[in-house]
Amino acid sequence: MVTAKDVSHAWTRIKPHVLRTPVLETDVFGMPLTLKLEQLQHTGSFKARGAMNSLLSMDVPKAGLVAASGGNHGAAVAWAAARLGHRARIYVPELAGDAKINLIQSLGADLVVVPGAYANALEQALSYEKDSGAAQIHAFDAPGTVAGQGTVMAEWEEQGLMADTVLIAVGGGGLIGGAMAWLEGRRKLVGVEPFNAPTLTQALEHGPQTTVEVSGLAANALGAKQAGRICYDLARATGTNCVNVEDEAIADAQKRLWTALRLVVEPAGAAALAALLSGAYRPQKDERLAVLLCGANPAASPFGPAKLQ
Amino acid sequence: MVTAKDVSHAWTRIKPHVLRTPVLETDVFGMPLTLKLEQLQHTGSFKARGAMNSLLSMDVPKAGLVAASGGNHGAAVAWAAARLGHRARIYVPELAGDAKINLIQSLGADLVVVPGAYANALEQALSYEKDSGAAQIHAFDAPGTVAGQGTVMAEWEEQGLMADTVLIAVGGGGLIGGAMAWLEGRRKLVGVEPFNAPTLTQALEHGPQTTVEVSGLAANALGAKQAGRICYDLARATGTNCVNVEDEAIADAQKRLWTALRLVVEPAGAAALAALLSGAYRPQKDERLAVLLCGANPAASPFGPAKLQ
Repeated sequence: MVTAKDVSHAWTRIKPHVLRTPVLETDVFGMPLTLKLEQLQHTGSFKARGAMNSLLSMDVPKAGLVAASGGNHGAAVAWAAARLGHRARIYVPELAGDAKINLIQSLGADLVVVPGAYANALEQALSYEKDSGAAQIHAFDAPGTVAGQGTVMAEWEEQGLMADTVLIAVGGGGLIGGAMAWLEGRRKLVGVEPFNAPTLTQALEHGPQTTVEVSGLAANALGAKQAGRICYDLARATGTNCVNVEDEAIADAQKRLWTALRLVVEPAGAAALAALLSGAYRPQKDERLAVLLCGANPAASPFGPAKLQ
Repeated sequence: MVTAKDVSHAWTRIKPHVLRTPVLETDVFGMPLTLKLEQLQHTGSFKARGAMNSLLSMDVPKAGLVAASGGNHGAAVAWAAARLGHRARIYVPELAGDAKINLIQSLGADLVVVPGAYANALEQALSYEKDSGAAQIHAFDAPGTVAGQGTVMAEWEEQGLMADTVLIAVGGGGLIGGAMAWLEGRRKLVGVEPFNAPTLTQALEHGPQTTVEVSGLAANALGAKQAGRICYDLARATGTNCVNVEDEAIADAQKRLWTALRLVVEPAGAAALAALLSGAYRPQKDERLAVLLCGANPAASPFGPAKLQ
């Protein structure tokens, strides 16, 4: 089990390396909301926190690091490795998409693109770990990763978070796991998953070994087939539950973040807001709400071939 | 002359209507920097502040409001008018571009697209004012506009701004004019203009009546032919000067804001940062620097035909 103390230690460790991401209070979506702009983090997602914490907590072998990722975790491991002077090999599935693949390459990692989904990339990463002696950095189900992701919530509270309820998108559960560990039930957490990737939702209903088929708009970021055990146990211990959103609601929230606030997020980054805008989560009267925006690596870069200038 | 007291009154007036835009501290550009994310403001630029202050300071006639604009001020007047229940007619030049034109239309204003540049749109707006009895909201050279823009600096100081020097892009001088009025010389301000639109630079050298030819990447936002008199007088009184940047430096800063921080700004919104990254402004050792990001309405929307998802 990852504890608040682990998150606190992680935070001391990574503070000099990560961005203190800003917070925005707004009623542009028709209700008072606090947004944490964690999509502005190094490499464009919260994953930088977990990766940096993992690397700073271990003796990195000469063979360096290996990770499997839908894209964002791979970029984060590549970034942390480059920053600390280590080698990194990253396995991503094809569905990571061009922007994430280019991002990982630009960070100097040794990249392997694998046919299939995240689970296929993980298989190859595990095999490389065995053969090479490189250290595996798991995308969501490792204590160092979860404790690192939890620092976003510690930082947010230090910034004066005034919310009863925090909505967080769930893939394998590293981010919400870290938040649960930090908060110890002091605030309500709501996990948000696409109907197309209801990993934690199904695990909480049918048991921790449950696997789900994943697809849809946010599959490369929220498409773990099985929830992390660390997250599952914390969710059970804290009574944390999930709501599900349609891909259309995610796309709509993504567009509204641009139209109302000029924020670019990827589908996974908009999922938590989608739960509020679509009514998948219905707050009580006077419930103070916060939404964690967690990723900004859309399939195409806005400064790609179709220029914005 | 606009004073700090005018800015203070403006702030009381508009506070319930505008977004408190977040601040970000980072060294991702190779030096410690404080960034104010004013491009996240309603309608995607600081112009919402001046427009709202102007409307709240006057008796709006039945004929409503009229404004000429390179795009952002027009969107701001349209937004403020809609929010307060007034009619608005907006004149923009063709070079405002599709995204800004669509934005103004989406806000419910009566829009007229004029061949030529900002000066041509202003001519038609003045003529409409005379014929219709609508109240003109000047884009930069009116006390209500300048005092409203100054509120961004008042807000930033309230957020704990720790900077010796603040870099701000200059078009007609409404934004930096408001900042000068508020700061009364307490911090150094540096105006940043493209070489392709050196309006205040030339006015300070050759006198307030000087007109310049404007062109280039940021022309629709920074392309006033003549500096506002309010800004000119404040710059003289406070000893504020300008530096100039090439369009290439602006485009580079714009891309780096995306790559390093996942922020989308328009060329004008990146100009102030470009002055630092290109060396057009060379800080002293230990000079604490702040950059105001001011606009996020690029020529094309990132959620336009070339989809980001």
